[in-house]
Amino acid sequence: MSLWNGPTLEVHADHARTLDQTRLPFEVVWLDLTSLPDCLRAIDTMQVRGAPLIGVVAAFGLAFAAREDASESALAVAMARLRATRPTAVNLQWALEQVHAAVRALGPQAGSAVRARQAWGKAVALARQDIEINAALGGHGLALILERVRWRAAQGRPVRADAPLQLLTHCNAGRLATVDHGTALAPIYRAVSEGIPVHVWVDETRPRNQGANLTAWELMQAGVACTVVADNAGGWLMQQGRVDAVIVGCDRVAANGDVANKIGTLLKALAACDAGLPFWVACPTATLDLATPTGQAIRIEMRTPREVTHMLARSPNGEIAEVALMAEDVCALNPAFDVTPARLVTALITERGCIDASGSALRTLMASILDQGVP
Amino acid sequence: MSLWNGPTLEVHADHARTLDQTRLPFEVVWLDLTSLPDCLRAIDTMQVRGAPLIGVVAAFGLAFAAREDASESALAVAMARLRATRPTAVNLQWALEQVHAAVRALGPQAGSAVRARQAWGKAVALARQDIEINAALGGHGLALILERVRWRAAQGRPVRADAPLQLLTHCNAGRLATVDHGTALAPIYRAVSEGIPVHVWVDETRPRNQGANLTAWELMQAGVACTVVADNAGGWLMQQGRVDAVIVGCDRVAANGDVANKIGTLLKALAACDAGLPFWVACPTATLDLATPTGQAIRIEMRTPREVTHMLARSPNGEIAEVALMAEDVCALNPAFDVTPARLVTALITERGCIDASGSALRTLMASILDQGVP
Repeated sequence: MSLWNGPTLEVHADHARTLDQTRLPFEVVWLDLTSLPDCLRAIDTMQVRGAPLIGVVAAFGLAFAAREDASESALAVAMARLRATRPTAVNLQWALEQVHAAVRALGPQAGSAVRARQAWGKAVALARQDIEINAALGGHGLALILERVRWRAAQGRPVRADAPLQLLTHCNAGRLATVDHGTALAPIYRAVSEGIPVHVWVDETRPRNQGANLTAWELMQAGVACTVVADNAGGWLMQQGRVDAVIVGCDRVAANGDVANKIGTLLKALAACDAGLPFWVACPTATLDLATPTGQAIRIEMRTPREVTHMLARSPNGEIAEVALMAEDVCALNPAFDVTPARLVTALITERGCIDASGSALRTLMASILDQGVP
Repeated sequence: MSLWNGPTLEVHADHARTLDQTRLPFEVVWLDLTSLPDCLRAIDTMQVRGAPLIGVVAAFGLAFAAREDASESALAVAMARLRATRPTAVNLQWALEQVHAAVRALGPQAGSAVRARQAWGKAVALARQDIEINAALGGHGLALILERVRWRAAQGRPVRADAPLQLLTHCNAGRLATVDHGTALAPIYRAVSEGIPVHVWVDETRPRNQGANLTAWELMQAGVACTVVADNAGGWLMQQGRVDAVIVGCDRVAANGDVANKIGTLLKALAACDAGLPFWVACPTATLDLATPTGQAIRIEMRTPREVTHMLARSPNGEIAEVALMAEDVCALNPAFDVTPARLVTALITERGCIDASGSALRTLMASILDQGVP
């Protein structure tokens, strides 16, 4: 199998192309996005997922809608439909506002074709910008990793090829969650490219198995050493001294530094805190949500119980199908995210640098974003 | 479907009968245990699991071995083979020693047939005793549950049919883990029989899904309200005030009160502590291991990665087969247990009463066991 190392979303002349993430790791299926319904379906069924990638696909959705009808009322309807797909990720709303603002900036005289071209141009720009942001974030995260390499050396356990730095991650905040590079995985890819031996513990991440299906797959494609563990195992790994730091992505950061991320993140943050390990959250500044005062105000998406009771799997004859894991009459609940309080977060890694989530640095950054506008 | 509400292990004239737990919840298959190899296979392949049930099946294994050859050397070989199946549960070793001690107590003059009968008698007695122990444990646990019912009332949130007491459990420490009643579930069955409205959050418990497959199944069979959640969801449920207490079983309690239990228990204990919720561990005194000073000394069983990467599931055509959840070349690690430090355990529930794991009460109980011998 040839290794895949390119971007997750490709921009073509009049459409976008992305991987169907519901088929991974069993099949590599590319998906053409050519219309608003394509983008709605892709986000809704999680063919694309990950806050940054959702934002960019939503932007393309709005641009496709503008091609059909670029009037303010039509754009408002399209935005409402896109916004309704996934309530927790703030990037989606942010990206829609970026495209909408670019169109409105043309003024009331602009014709439909001009407005549609402007929307498309902004969507393309957001896709390019996501790549730049994540590359910058990876550079800042590298500094934290290098600090941890020095910490290991100071402990008399130097990082070597046969004793790599041990990082644990939850869910997928990798290349597949973004247009390229990833957020939580960007510092890891960067560290590996600098020749630092790294091994990644990948939480399976039930119920949708994004860790096992997406993170392990993309790390293996990129030649990064990794091992999948059940979500239950992370506390034990930390207890045993087999983790040097935890790094995760996030879907929304409240103004007080509380972090909403994939369900189960909180448990790993508690375990890292108890074991005295750093817990890093990679978050492009677009993920900072000034309008949400604390994590308690973040609405948590409840998804269908079927994601808990059923799963896509490969049977012994090679057939890929949805199978039942449990008895048919079992009742299940499926909250998609939880909130990690700022006190458990050692650092937020943004494209502007690393900041202490619970200290005054976050407020300073928030204020500077309010002043300057998000990049 | 007729409800199953009987014991997990039935004693017949010359053999024992138990449920094949690897087929649940898809098929209810009863398994005759008639020989040492039957018992070795049942424990090794986890057709039976749960520390108390493993202990009783091991006792029957030794009794079957004694029928073939009741000499000391033959019993020593059988004990070594049985002991090698599952290293973490202390009950297995304890049960073997009980049978062996009963045989040796006959003195050197006893003939083979007498020794074999004695071994069988002791195995049967251990099975009966397990039922009594768990019933007593359930009674003591009921007191803690009633305390929590009063706490809810004092908070202005009285426990009612439409607002049941919310308990969370991990793995299966139910009827299926014992001969009858269960350990962690014994107080729940008792509370329900007393008319207290209870709802149980059942951790799926990856990688072997004992929560979804066994706990949810047996609770539903017994008519107890329950909902399965991914292991990742427990922290969020506690954060949201949707859990009133956590109750789990255990495989071994060290002399300092540290508790070895199913992988992932530690994460729930950390979350309960952070949310100010009680974390109860149900442990028959046979689970107390005076020879192990702290949790660090408990050997953690590593099981095959295949349990992480594959799973028994039902395909759309109704066929039950082992399916692959991940890409074939994924590397996985599968620690079966973790250690919850005594500081995170609010109470140990034993058949002799409830005790504070971290206080002097544990040492007093330990001392009394040393004096009196385990019942």
